[in-house]
Amino acid sequence: MNTTIESLTQALRRFAAERDWEQFHSPKNLAAALTVEAAELLEHFQWLTEEQSRNLPADKRAAVSQEIADVLLYLLQIADKLQIDVIAAANEKLALNGAKYPAAQARGSSAKSDELRRAQEEVNGGPS
Amino acid sequence: MNTTIESLTQALRRFAAERDWEQFHSPKNLAAALTVEAAELLEHFQWLTEEQSRNLPADKRAAVSQEIADVLLYLLQIADKLQIDVIAAANEKLALNGAKYPAAQARGSSAKSDELRRAQEEVNGGPS
Amino acid sequence: MNTTIESLTQALRRFAAERDWEQFHSPKNLAAALTVEAAELLEHFQWLTEEQSRNLPADKRAAVSQEIADVLLYLLQIADKLQIDVIAAANEKLALNGAKYPAAQARGSSAKSDELRRAQEEVNGGPS
Amino acid sequence: MNTTIESLTQALRRFAAERDWEQFHSPKNLAAALTVEAAELLEHFQWLTEEQSRNLPADKRAAVSQEIADVLLYLLQIADKLQIDVIAAANEKLALNGAKYPAAQARGSSAKSDELRRAQEEVNGGPS
Repeated sequence: MNTTIESLTQALRRFAAERDWEQFHSPKNLAAALTVEAAELLEHFQWLTEEQSRNLPADKRAAVSQEIADVLLYLLQIADKLQIDVIAAANEKLALNGAKYPAAQARGSSAKSDELRRAQEEVNGGPS
Repeated sequence: MNTTIESLTQALRRFAAERDWEQFHSPKNLAAALTVEAAELLEHFQWLTEEQSRNLPADKRAAVSQEIADVLLYLLQIADKLQIDVIAAANEKLALNGAKYPAAQARGSSAKSDELRRAQEEVNGGPS
Repeated sequence: MNTTIESLTQALRRFAAERDWEQFHSPKNLAAALTVEAAELLEHFQWLTEEQSRNLPADKRAAVSQEIADVLLYLLQIADKLQIDVIAAANEKLALNGAKYPAAQARGSSAKSDELRRAQEEVNGGPS
Repeated sequence: MNTTIESLTQALRRFAAERDWEQFHSPKNLAAALTVEAAELLEHFQWLTEEQSRNLPADKRAAVSQEIADVLLYLLQIADKLQIDVIAAANEKLALNGAKYPAAQARGSSAKSDELRRAQEEVNGGPS
């Protein structure tokens, strides 16, 4: 078992090389394949209520688990092709999100950051 | 910096809790958000040639890195909600893919496994 | 105003030709762009409840209307490139769906057709 | 055969009503389903070259035609639920796109409108 992102990435490289699939694995094609897998994950939830999606039966949960794996496997391959460290990128994005959505303003709101800012400005008597 | 999937997952839990966002984070909604982020990643590549996608200018690569991070952050949150171990799931899927696409048959072909099987059966004189 | 699918398709051809954009408009690229627009439409709904999605405020409804237009415009362009009559294709698919999901069995169920068939077979004492 | 958008929309209403599916057809769910279908369309192209995507074999073209139909059928259902006239929306968006991408500046470029504007400003000695 590959226990880290690095060893998974190595395994994916071997997998593609053994099948001579690097020719298909441009970042463009991998991004399309990733989106397709994300949509296959979404498909499992599309007619469920949110409540049902929180309580999946075992067989559905197993199928969802495979789609989650597919998304991760393509994500690691794109990142590998572009020499992006996904863990570092995730940490940086989390920090950016913290700045964009300060806990005090964002509390309990699903508004996007520009909407939050406008709402805040209105409270403050700023530009509408 | 969160150096592992586990610590990133913990950080994401705190992030959502501080903003009271768990109410929005049903697996169904997270799967939709994940798909949206995957599509934002794809958007960067949609008009590029495959060759151009392999050689991104620095600013585009930085933007792509943020989208990759967004995809990973949502993926970890869905997996957390459903108590799925993404690394174990990825290993299992990789093993399944190895069985579905044996290196010998899949070599240099982008055909799906059912198409590969049909092609193989034709070679073997099996059912068309 | 272009009042028909045909005249819209003609207008899209002129639009692309005037900008020398046919070079970018391979069916592959258009399918990626279509998916990106569909996800932009979905983004408006991702944190809403289903009930909220049925009762959009006017500004959100206007934004959604633009995304719906984008999806249609790319769809017509793919169909045009592949010489597919979208109205005929929609009629054929509707007939297929009617056969896959007979009203009596599908009533009130979001199960996919293979799940419906299995459920029906169980009722009938067929293969489990 | 339903020859117009209106008659297709009517047929889709009857189809859902006969199956008691309106309960699942919130705009939110329909937008997810639309995105899933768009991704299924994209899946057919993901490993093809652009050139191959312009020259599909007959069986692939038939499969693509069904996915195009699925996208249209969900699009018409969302529009119907939100009382949006898709033809009018498409005309309005086409006019907006014409203003965003003037033929002279956009000629042969896949840059987004903000990138085009910046490029134009640089040419004009405007703000960098």
